Amino acid sequence: MPHLDRITQPADLRSLSTAQLTELAEEIREFLVTSVSRTGGHLGPNLGVVELTIALHRVFDSPTDPIVFDTGHQSYVHKLLTGRRAGFEQLRQSGGLSGYPSREESEHDWVENSHASTALSWADGLAKAKALRGEDGTVVAVVGDGALTGGMAWEALNNIAFQPELPVVVVVNDNGRSYTPTVGGIANQLAALRTDRRYEQVLELIRRSVSSTPLVGRPAYELLHGIKMGLKDVLAPQGMFSDLGLKYVGPIDGHDLEAVERALRQAKRFGGPVLVHCLTVKGKGFQAAERHEEDRFHAVGQIDAHTGEPLSSVVPHTWTNVFAEAMVELGAEHEDLVAITAAMLHPTGLNKFAARYPARAFDVGIAEQHALTSAAGLASAGLHPVVAVYSTFLNRAFDQLLMDVALHRQGVTVVLDRSGVTGSDGASHNGMWDLSICGVVPGLQLAAPRDGRRLREALAHAVTVDDAPTVIRFSKEKVPDDIEAITSRDGLDVLHADPEPRVLVVGYGQMAGTALEVAARLGQQGIGSTVVDPLWALPVRPSLVSLAAEHELVVSIEDNGVVGGLGARLLLELAAAGVPTPVQVHGIPQEFLPHASRPELLEQIGLTPHAIARVAVEAVAGRDGVVEPEGIEVNPAS
Amino acid sequence: MPHLDRITQPADLRSLSTAQLTELAEEIREFLVTSVSRTGGHLGPNLGVVELTIALHRVFDSPTDPIVFDTGHQSYVHKLLTGRRAGFEQLRQSGGLSGYPSREESEHDWVENSHASTALSWADGLAKAKALRGEDGTVVAVVGDGALTGGMAWEALNNIAFQPELPVVVVVNDNGRSYTPTVGGIANQLAALRTDRRYEQVLELIRRSVSSTPLVGRPAYELLHGIKMGLKDVLAPQGMFSDLGLKYVGPIDGHDLEAVERALRQAKRFGGPVLVHCLTVKGKGFQAAERHEEDRFHAVGQIDAHTGEPLSSVVPHTWTNVFAEAMVELGAEHEDLVAITAAMLHPTGLNKFAARYPARAFDVGIAEQHALTSAAGLASAGLHPVVAVYSTFLNRAFDQLLMDVALHRQGVTVVLDRSGVTGSDGASHNGMWDLSICGVVPGLQLAAPRDGRRLREALAHAVTVDDAPTVIRFSKEKVPDDIEAITSRDGLDVLHADPEPRVLVVGYGQMAGTALEVAARLGQQGIGSTVVDPLWALPVRPSLVSLAAEHELVVSIEDNGVVGGLGARLLLELAAAGVPTPVQVHGIPQEFLPHASRPELLEQIGLTPHAIARVAVEAVAGRDGVVEPEGIEVNPAS
Repeated sequence: MPHLDRITQPADLRSLSTAQLTELAEEIREFLVTSVSRTGGHLGPNLGVVELTIALHRVFDSPTDPIVFDTGHQSYVHKLLTGRRAGFEQLRQSGGLSGYPSREESEHDWVENSHASTALSWADGLAKAKALRGEDGTVVAVVGDGALTGGMAWEALNNIAFQPELPVVVVVNDNGRSYTPTVGGIANQLAALRTDRRYEQVLELIRRSVSSTPLVGRPAYELLHGIKMGLKDVLAPQGMFSDLGLKYVGPIDGHDLEAVERALRQAKRFGGPVLVHCLTVKGKGFQAAERHEEDRFHAVGQIDAHTGEPLSSVVPHTWTNVFAEAMVELGAEHEDLVAITAAMLHPTGLNKFAARYPARAFDVGIAEQHALTSAAGLASAGLHPVVAVYSTFLNRAFDQLLMDVALHRQGVTVVLDRSGVTGSDGASHNGMWDLSICGVVPGLQLAAPRDGRRLREALAHAVTVDDAPTVIRFSKEKVPDDIEAITSRDGLDVLHADPEPRVLVVGYGQMAGTALEVAARLGQQGIGSTVVDPLWALPVRPSLVSLAAEHELVVSIEDNGVVGGLGARLLLELAAAGVPTPVQVHGIPQEFLPHASRPELLEQIGLTPHAIARVAVEAVAGRDGVVEPEGIEVNPAS
Repeated sequence: MPHLDRITQPADLRSLSTAQLTELAEEIREFLVTSVSRTGGHLGPNLGVVELTIALHRVFDSPTDPIVFDTGHQSYVHKLLTGRRAGFEQLRQSGGLSGYPSREESEHDWVENSHASTALSWADGLAKAKALRGEDGTVVAVVGDGALTGGMAWEALNNIAFQPELPVVVVVNDNGRSYTPTVGGIANQLAALRTDRRYEQVLELIRRSVSSTPLVGRPAYELLHGIKMGLKDVLAPQGMFSDLGLKYVGPIDGHDLEAVERALRQAKRFGGPVLVHCLTVKGKGFQAAERHEEDRFHAVGQIDAHTGEPLSSVVPHTWTNVFAEAMVELGAEHEDLVAITAAMLHPTGLNKFAARYPARAFDVGIAEQHALTSAAGLASAGLHPVVAVYSTFLNRAFDQLLMDVALHRQGVTVVLDRSGVTGSDGASHNGMWDLSICGVVPGLQLAAPRDGRRLREALAHAVTVDDAPTVIRFSKEKVPDDIEAITSRDGLDVLHADPEPRVLVVGYGQMAGTALEVAARLGQQGIGSTVVDPLWALPVRPSLVSLAAEHELVVSIEDNGVVGGLGARLLLELAAAGVPTPVQVHGIPQEFLPHASRPELLEQIGLTPHAIARVAVEAVAGRDGVVEPEGIEVNPAS
């Protein structure tokens, strides 16, 4: 790759001719397909921004001109052009290159957050600060058309648009899609801008009026010409961005390097807020991706670099699949059941429900706030909505879950995929906050099923609760085989029961299996235990409190942050009931985890059967006077 | 009041003549001014919507046609017209009429939430459900222009606009203000719509072109007329709402009853989503309000019904004032200090900072998400932003606080006014969630100062922390006199220290005084205690854990929800450290509180020195074998 080999920083791009740049774009595409096929990663979005990213780095002077990528999975080309090619060998692996921008990796990276629609607000702040400090530079925000459906983007546009001096260039990378095609009025507006006809409509109307009026020849021509010139001033620029006060440039063919560069230079020269509308093709240049209906290879695992076929033929048995099928079944039983997704119809598995009951499935765009409050409205008028989102994105809708759903006692079910440690997507994708924030919501019931059967049961129950929010959380991992209960005790499933138990092990969701392994290790040390799965983790059942009172030690294991998790809640309930049994709280430490595989992370944070059993054994031994209990390491709460 | 006396339900409005309706509007204004002057409440917003609300109830058939009021403080007229006049005597008082819509009060009320920008999403859900269930009815959302700056409103508009069959009428009550004038591109767009000149511009242009063309008389007239008619179709409706796909009707004089009714009937007949743009005057008809620059009497205490002057001349010494003055002082010392408000410049006290340093204060509109992320951007470029919001509104920006500020380790200070029990505004205004959600944010430091001096000290420290979010919370109450510490111990302020203490009382913020009163009561019972204020409640200091280990009992008192509060966090830290000292956790029970005064609510939830001391005494007596400790009532955790 003669050109790519010589690019180690953006400045290296500036001496290349147009022909050379075109060859470079080819090389980059070849590199991306070859490399990401091997490691997995976000392929489609990056293939779509090759020319755009080259143009950005030729026109702007990063990092003096900060380039902020919204939902940073479209930053691979940017990484290649800023000297990080070698890192792609270990993309998204522990110690390797992050799948998103990373400030540790490069001074060219500003925003690591992979939640959508934030880039415009970052740009607003960066540009304001530069202006106040008297620093030069233009701030560039690269945002997908899908991200414009998010409310934050609107809040930012509303602010950027009325600061006429703010040097912000908003590049809308319009590929017409989030994962799936972008929805809503903004999608229509973008489409309208792509092929605006208003100017032509007015001209046509005037032409018709003129031709039905008795005048011909030169006077008619002059009339038309005069009107035409004037109309341009009156009608263009137009569209909603201009209505807000933003200068609009576009639409531009995002794969025409010269056109993109020209538009960006024009935008940079303007000195105030400008929106540059680039049309790109997700998956561009890789036929398998361009043709892929579902998501244009938004994110792939290991694939064949020529055919795009997955290398592994094993289709994992995922929680998403169990949920998807359960929804279709429940949809037949419950005519009032409706489903809502925030631009993630396929990733959440709701595509199956939508295919079967198209009128009862709503894709609201990247708009979690609206998803929850619209759900409250649906419930308030007699339906039962199921809102399916990734756990980490529920954070966007906490206020709406609390105030619109719970305060109004609406029967809305929220289904959280990707809860707990997810790993390779990095800190902002781990679903480690949901149980903590759900715990403060009055009346909320939360289930974390341990297997497919329990998920189906929890969902079947949740959709019948019509006066409170219900939440079901599950993991990105594959579904464990069903773990049957020995017995049930006041709503708790007892999974293991030694005759003279000293330790109560509480595990839910993906951690029920871990709890059983801990019990086995305790048994090997001659320590009897009881293992329970509370099924519904919130509210804490009184039976869990009384069971705790019957044991010498409680070991609580969860795939959620320790602060505000079930263990913490159990401590609170035990304190309120005056039960003095000590509790060892095991969960995710309250910190941002680096990207790595889930097993690696669990090992690092001590959330393994081995580590958990060890501290339990030490505590029991301490009680027996064998060793001092001091110095026992549990997961620190902060 | 001959007309108002006869209105007990909306149907009673329908038989009145235009003249009678005008008289009714006068009566309603007189009633509002007289009544709200006596009780206090939201006066300005309701004076502005008298005609609009009458028209709504004449045109639509509530509750078959649900009318959803955004930020329900503009629902007083609606309450009057739906049979709740008598309740105004006890407006916002315990057992009396809520200051917001209330589903307990009336079937005409749908949404109780007083957080802004939600009504459109509610309407979307309600209308979708009605359509799916085959029910008749149009859903009306009444939303202020200020609320359109909120991202949720955009998410909803984006959805509503692309469902051409959805019977939703969005009434924009455009008074040009939130508290203060509405900001941003949307404000400009509304202003442009108010006096749209595009149609006239084109006509004028054509007129000029025609007149410079040699044709006169009838041909010219016919040409012009034909173009005029055609242009109307092409150019009107226009503006950003139409660009999105919403039918736009307006602007309408919101005080011209017939015009409003005509527009609403037209919108209702249309059958799809329509936006009706009404221009109103906040405070209309009450001169003192109309002239009031700051907020047009947005919300008032007891005032003189003629002059609008406050009845009490005592200006309370508020936390807001201390904060406001401290910001001005710190602004002089720290040139990098900037301030952000979400449409609440005066209520947060930032108006003083803005007056002194206009270039360093930003009002971003009702846009808490953008406020936090823009702050992250400002910090990232070297400034130190202070974002001042009411505690309950931080819930809107949890994701941004977590992902944009904390994950990026930005030095952003969030100042939370109205934390803890606020009372008369009802459930959605109590600031009882902030410490719980802040507790899960890695690296975050939170102070809850107990007096004015401590607030100034905390703020002075916070603005120097440049690698983590800092949060300062304080109450709506007046500031207590300074409470000096006896001594300081590893960062904790010791406020009281008996020689042989058995009980450690922990109180912070507004509850430090309560903690001292509890200690006094314990002392009367011969029980020695130590009282500490942790100053910075988060993270929990190790010294607090070791201090707890030196006592027999910890009593934790806070003005935050018990779930995830400091008491709960202390339990977690004690468990991690293996400290067995029991903790009594006193805070706000995790439920939605009814509206009442703060003292009434504190009494109801047992957050008084008397109640707290009683359970502490019982526990100590239990340890001494005097009574059984079982059955002790503490605040249950759920």
